[in-house]
Amino acid sequence: MKLLTPEALEARLRDIGARRYHRLHPFHALLHGGKCTKGQVQAWALNRYYYQAMIPVKDASLIARCEDPGLRREWRSRLVDHDGEEEGQGGIARWLKLTDGVGLDRDYVVSLAGLLPATRFAVDAYVRFVREKSLLEAVASSLTELFSPQIIGERVEGMLKNYDFITGDTLAYFSKRPPLAQRDSEFALDYVKRNARSAEAQRAALAALEFKCDVLWAMLDALYHAYVTPKHVQTCTYVTKDQQPE
Amino acid sequence: MKLLTPEALEARLRDIGARRYHRLHPFHALLHGGKCTKGQVQAWALNRYYYQAMIPVKDASLIARCEDPGLRREWRSRLVDHDGEEEGQGGIARWLKLTDGVGLDRDYVVSLAGLLPATRFAVDAYVRFVREKSLLEAVASSLTELFSPQIIGERVEGMLKNYDFITGDTLAYFSKRPPLAQRDSEFALDYVKRNARSAEAQRAALAALEFKCDVLWAMLDALYHAYVTPKHVQTCTYVTKDQQPE
Repeated sequence: MKLLTPEALEARLRDIGARRYHRLHPFHALLHGGKCTKGQVQAWALNRYYYQAMIPVKDASLIARCEDPGLRREWRSRLVDHDGEEEGQGGIARWLKLTDGVGLDRDYVVSLAGLLPATRFAVDAYVRFVREKSLLEAVASSLTELFSPQIIGERVEGMLKNYDFITGDTLAYFSKRPPLAQRDSEFALDYVKRNARSAEAQRAALAALEFKCDVLWAMLDALYHAYVTPKHVQTCTYVTKDQQPE
Repeated sequence: MKLLTPEALEARLRDIGARRYHRLHPFHALLHGGKCTKGQVQAWALNRYYYQAMIPVKDASLIARCEDPGLRREWRSRLVDHDGEEEGQGGIARWLKLTDGVGLDRDYVVSLAGLLPATRFAVDAYVRFVREKSLLEAVASSLTELFSPQIIGERVEGMLKNYDFITGDTLAYFSKRPPLAQRDSEFALDYVKRNARSAEAQRAALAALEFKCDVLWAMLDALYHAYVTPKHVQTCTYVTKDQQPE
């Protein structure tokens, strides 16, 4: 691979999103198209909670690697977005409104007792990636946010239309995200374009975004295998016993 | 060691400060008493800059280990204090006003080219401690702030009185710190008292504060050996060539 211009690098990054972002996963077609049972929607919300809960840990891990106060300050706004300014605010609290709204017990969600092992492995791999890879790769791995406004639009529209147990209030998390995701992903994209100055660094940035797409994809694979086409029920953790598929 | 009451634990923590805090180091007696040369004051400011610069990295490392959004939110205020809300604000920027004020070139300070190796080792050991020890020990290691308002008061008074090249503006860092240090150390002390629930945990918390006192002490030892009583000049890095002692 030759050194790309910043614009060509951006095109390659966007192409990864077009080909590998979890918008394309069959579980999302079911979820957004109204084809999920309530239990499957619950399983999605419960498993995704762990991802949401670990995002500030991931972001603080990135800040902990920055020697540049400016980059730390910029990335700090992500901690504010997810943890909020006080209790009950921020993205994690809004995600818990979603799990409340779909009828899950909050203590059970937060306990992680219902989490699929593959969800934990995928999320933990993401946090570890941000701690261990280069700072450029850590920043690049956040670039799935470039693609999130579209999937969020589809999700909110589809879920409101297709499930009578879903309200706008339940989906408040998503109504807040697009402007934040746009601000964050523009900053991160600019950072990657400016700092990936060798072919090797560009290759690493592209691989980081592919890795992150794999994390999100693997989370949906796990849901699909456990709740849509379960084959090995003894290995699955279910949201509640009565939602266990037959 | 038996399990202490929270109050007895606090008394033991405060006793560590009374016996081992760097307020007692002979370098500070020289610094505050007007007995330092300008070059020695510069060396102190330059070496301490690295400690200041790494504090947000240390604090983000602690946040990156917290699963509790409330603790993350609380600790986040330390990032704000040190990195500021925008460029030129915050504790690091104020420390650079101090290094400016004592006549050091800012690029040279930030480059760390003049840093004593022992300063780097001590500061890096502190960051590593916060990353690798228990969360309780990480929090406990911050408790030197319990003792900082007194030393700051002595420092500001002594330096303003004793050095004609020091102004109140140069020492702005210190005028901002005491209320922040008090807020932070009260929170951390309460956290340690509530969370050190076994004799082993209490012992670890006490050892963490001793470790942190050693970090601060070692930084002053390095300054003393290099700039007050230099014996092995070839191993020292000097602020500038012309400040090298004879």
